[in-house]
Amino acid sequence: MSQAFHMRSIGHVRSPFTETRQIPKGPGAEHLAEGTLEVLEEFTPGLRDIEGFSHLYVIWAFHRADGFDLVAAPPCDDRTHGVFATRSPRRPNPIGLTVVELLERRGASLRVRGVDMLDGTPVLDLKPYLSSVPEARLRRGWLAEAESRRAKQGS
Amino acid sequence: MSQAFHMRSIGHVRSPFTETRQIPKGPGAEHLAEGTLEVLEEFTPGLRDIEGFSHLYVIWAFHRADGFDLVAAPPCDDRTHGVFATRSPRRPNPIGLTVVELLERRGASLRVRGVDMLDGTPVLDLKPYLSSVPEARLRRGWLAEAESRRAKQGS
Repeated sequence: MSQAFHMRSIGHVRSPFTETRQIPKGPGAEHLAEGTLEVLEEFTPGLRDIEGFSHLYVIWAFHRADGFDLVAAPPCDDRTHGVFATRSPRRPNPIGLTVVELLERRGASLRVRGVDMLDGTPVLDLKPYLSSVPEARLRRGWLAEAESRRAKQGS
Repeated sequence: MSQAFHMRSIGHVRSPFTETRQIPKGPGAEHLAEGTLEVLEEFTPGLRDIEGFSHLYVIWAFHRADGFDLVAAPPCDDRTHGVFATRSPRRPNPIGLTVVELLERRGASLRVRGVDMLDGTPVLDLKPYLSSVPEARLRRGWLAEAESRRAKQGS
């Protein structure tokens, strides 16, 4: 049985992107855009000591997504994949996840590098980014295959 | 202004942990426990091609947490920190995030290593784990300081 949960934004993203087509996508897309996470005043005490971390997880809401597709073709591939094997915005729960680099904190405002969200995106949670999986142990599934096919087509 | 979002579970975690005190916590805690992510039948098509990824992000709900604290002392430190600088379950939105290694898929059931959730934990989303921040660029804030203090006390 599915259980219901009610979430609310704790702040929002200020980003240079006002349209989804402006956001770099697909394999090799570099997310170097700077933006700001503006935390609501009522939640500001929750930021204490956050400036000691170089990177943060930002959990946010795809607030412009309407509905979901369980299977779809991502922009970087001509084949379809299950939504849980992609970062599609059209998900059963419209939750986005981005790792950003924390550049500066000013009160309730966090200047960060690496935003791939639209301006005005609601933020649901922030967590310190602590660990990483060694590259050598990482397999990237259909994405690696799509990259390889594209490389062959390009050569 | 805070915005509201309604989420629902897409499945649940089968884990060896039935009480929070059984879950390894704090710096250096190794999460090697195996468990299963059981996805609801209606969402199973969304898993297509997920078996090609070695690691997954699991976004889940702290379903036993009741309310939140903006500032609290985590189990690994005697000092208080803002909730967004910790992984406390008592968060404004009770969202948990875990990176797991995908060992095997059998239909709607994903056997994984690295669970740190309670048995029965509702799953909200699954995403492929793709990238990592190089160790050399990572700062771990108060956690590194707490580790260092504990190491000195121990010596």
